[in-house]
Amino acid sequence: MEDLTARVRAFAEDRDWQQFHTPKNLAMALAGEVGELLAELQWLTPEQAAAVMDDPERGARIRAEIGDVMIYLTRLADVLGIDLVESAVTKLAEVAIRYPVEQARGSATKR
Amino acid sequence: MEDLTARVRAFAEDRDWQQFHTPKNLAMALAGEVGELLAELQWLTPEQAAAVMDDPERGARIRAEIGDVMIYLTRLADVLGIDLVESAVTKLAEVAIRYPVEQARGSATKR
Amino acid sequence: MEDLTARVRAFAEDRDWQQFHTPKNLAMALAGEVGELLAELQWLTPEQAAAVMDDPERGARIRAEIGDVMIYLTRLADVLGIDLVESAVTKLAEVAIRYPVEQARGSATKR
Amino acid sequence: MEDLTARVRAFAEDRDWQQFHTPKNLAMALAGEVGELLAELQWLTPEQAAAVMDDPERGARIRAEIGDVMIYLTRLADVLGIDLVESAVTKLAEVAIRYPVEQARGSATKR
Repeated sequence: MEDLTARVRAFAEDRDWQQFHTPKNLAMALAGEVGELLAELQWLTPEQAAAVMDDPERGARIRAEIGDVMIYLTRLADVLGIDLVESAVTKLAEVAIRYPVEQARGSATKR
Repeated sequence: MEDLTARVRAFAEDRDWQQFHTPKNLAMALAGEVGELLAELQWLTPEQAAAVMDDPERGARIRAEIGDVMIYLTRLADVLGIDLVESAVTKLAEVAIRYPVEQARGSATKR
Repeated sequence: MEDLTARVRAFAEDRDWQQFHTPKNLAMALAGEVGELLAELQWLTPEQAAAVMDDPERGARIRAEIGDVMIYLTRLADVLGIDLVESAVTKLAEVAIRYPVEQARGSATKR
Repeated sequence: MEDLTARVRAFAEDRDWQQFHTPKNLAMALAGEVGELLAELQWLTPEQAAAVMDDPERGARIRAEIGDVMIYLTRLADVLGIDLVESAVTKLAEVAIRYPVEQARGSATKR
């Protein structure tokens, strides 16, 4: 993960793109890439979507879109000085308290 | 990173939420969390956004939203059987070829 | 529709919010509101989502989110000097040519 | 506006696309199109974005993306049985109460 952060940073610095990589711009780019990911899944039935990685062509596109999302998320976290994995672990611990196993089991209510 | 994937998976399984965690649903949840992240930044000037982590309250909210985005991205990749970091490294290598350092330097054209 | 545009504009001007209503900020706000709309639908089964307006509480929330999305879309179009309905009619005519009825019928391929 | 709703509905019915036009799928498509709109604006400076419609090429792309967003929003509202303009007018009236002119003037706090 630190290696990925360093690679993405080097990629941007090599191209002198730090000037474009502001928090707002990167958040917009992240949303744009998530939009492309949604577009890959939007017309599939739930069954087709569950098996999407078995389709070599679609699977490759999904993998590429997930990669794009991860690149921008990594870059945004780096620019903000946030440790991506730590922020997720911390948040997960908070959510675990908010949704205790016994009450939350099998319920779709607000999560 | 593998540890995070395992934690998020256990979190879902403990609550019997696998039934909700389909690729389409998780992609929607991911987009929803990115939307909340955008909402934290949308009215800030570029200068305010660049210094957003210096503000303890806003900084904490941004960190929490980044954590949420990372949780859903990790879960979606897990459900699809995609290695998140590997997908980003692979995609970054492709993008590096598409935007050679010399031509891309300092240019905002389509990236 | 012109009336809605005028009302949204007056709402912003009365509060001296034009300074925040730049194209980038409004596009971010639009994405944020679409994220909230997705969040209302994300954990529902297709069947539950199809009947969502029969549930008074959920129905009211969906209606409010659709309203929010429409408010920001209207404002963004106004700031950019774009006629919202005209832009949709023009685009629909283009898409109709790209997807001729005979070939497109019932097919989920790229639309 | 009613005319646009009818046109978009006829477009879908002519192609037998009602089967794909579920609330969840349309919400995903809407988010996807908003993502494309963000992508047009993401690397521009605020100044460039403010003048984006003066650039014929970029302006045409923005107009097309706004049209796409409006098409899917219109279709989603139609499928849900929601009057798009009415939902915005109703929501605007609620927001006007929540942000009284005197207190809200010129302040970027949570809106």
